[in-house]
Amino acid sequence: MPMEPTERVTRHFQEELEQLKERLLVMGGLAEERVREVVQGLIDRDTAAIERALVADEPINQLHLEVDSRCFKMLALHQPMATDLRAIVAAVKINTDLERVGDLAVNIAEAVRRYLHHVPVKELIDIPRMADIAQLMLRDALDAFVRRDVALAERVLQQDDTLDALKTQVFRELLTYMLQSPATIEPALDLILISRHLERIGDHATNVAEDVIFMVSARDVRHHPPDAKEPDHE
Amino acid sequence: MPMEPTERVTRHFQEELEQLKERLLVMGGLAEERVREVVQGLIDRDTAAIERALVADEPINQLHLEVDSRCFKMLALHQPMATDLRAIVAAVKINTDLERVGDLAVNIAEAVRRYLHHVPVKELIDIPRMADIAQLMLRDALDAFVRRDVALAERVLQQDDTLDALKTQVFRELLTYMLQSPATIEPALDLILISRHLERIGDHATNVAEDVIFMVSARDVRHHPPDAKEPDHE
Repeated sequence: MPMEPTERVTRHFQEELEQLKERLLVMGGLAEERVREVVQGLIDRDTAAIERALVADEPINQLHLEVDSRCFKMLALHQPMATDLRAIVAAVKINTDLERVGDLAVNIAEAVRRYLHHVPVKELIDIPRMADIAQLMLRDALDAFVRRDVALAERVLQQDDTLDALKTQVFRELLTYMLQSPATIEPALDLILISRHLERIGDHATNVAEDVIFMVSARDVRHHPPDAKEPDHE
Repeated sequence: MPMEPTERVTRHFQEELEQLKERLLVMGGLAEERVREVVQGLIDRDTAAIERALVADEPINQLHLEVDSRCFKMLALHQPMATDLRAIVAAVKINTDLERVGDLAVNIAEAVRRYLHHVPVKELIDIPRMADIAQLMLRDALDAFVRRDVALAERVLQQDDTLDALKTQVFRELLTYMLQSPATIEPALDLILISRHLERIGDHATNVAEDVIFMVSARDVRHHPPDAKEPDHE
């Protein structure tokens, strides 16, 4: 039996929506990988890896343009309603967040490059932990988007506090080093910046999770303490 | 002569679009005012003003929710095309940027509050300049949005380099202080953070300007050097 025209249009939209999600997953995977690379470069003191990371954000930027263009076309051609419309609006926002994560990986690489000119301030413990948490938040938030999983999105929101606490801990510890030994001031400053960049990556994952909750449940969890993201992040 | 139904729908949409722009202008005005207040609080060492600023972002957060909701309804009810669709998508993005500017004003207030516990590191010259430029960029970017003024939006993009250069200058100068006198380390760190928050406010104004250019000309200026924003911002 041939399909009704409306049914055909709907199926076409759903196919495009699947493709859109797939592109966002690719973009998220790239962004996560960039964060992993630059933090690994910091741990291994691998200057070559950092130099590569500094010039490698072109694929994410291209995906950023492509996803925006896909969203725009889907809005214009299909004029989606309700849950489909919320999915596209969420995709527009998630796209912005993922592009910023790519930028932040470059910012981290810049700080690592400067840091590697100095003797290490200390053994790195909290910064790799922060990176692990930020990457996991990003992955979970995107999984939650693809699977429309509100419970998973809510778990991402909870992780943000851990990241924030670690950032404060890193700051206090490095301040002590700086006060005791002026030679550590410059490299410690870069570690402080790196921890802040990682914390902002967690903020972007939080934004994605909030968009997922809105998309699925039409419930806006932003600006409603205690769920809401506090502006106390940097 | 009575209006055609289509014409009536179109007029209704245009009225809603005007209201939407007006709400974004109010939000931008509030965000700009918050930035002005916290930097003035820093200059005047006015602890009371800073304490007020720390709890005053509720109106911006409420507008953030309202604007998102307006955009969503306009997309769902009017299914706009072409330039109207681009205006709504731009509004969704601009809304996010303005909300972040409000958060950054709070972040600045937090750093100022810590800073005011210390003896001043130095006379403030570049930070007030950075604040003036960031506020002007924000105002111009929103004016460009309302007036659909691409030339003005392009001037905003150019200003971003000035802000970036000032941020680097502030960093170098404060680093010298920190290296010479450990007593300045803590307050100088806060000034460095404040300059970075101001620079990020400029980044958000840049995002708005890029959205305006896309809205008016359907031309994407992101990720195309030398116009494109460099990720070298924090």
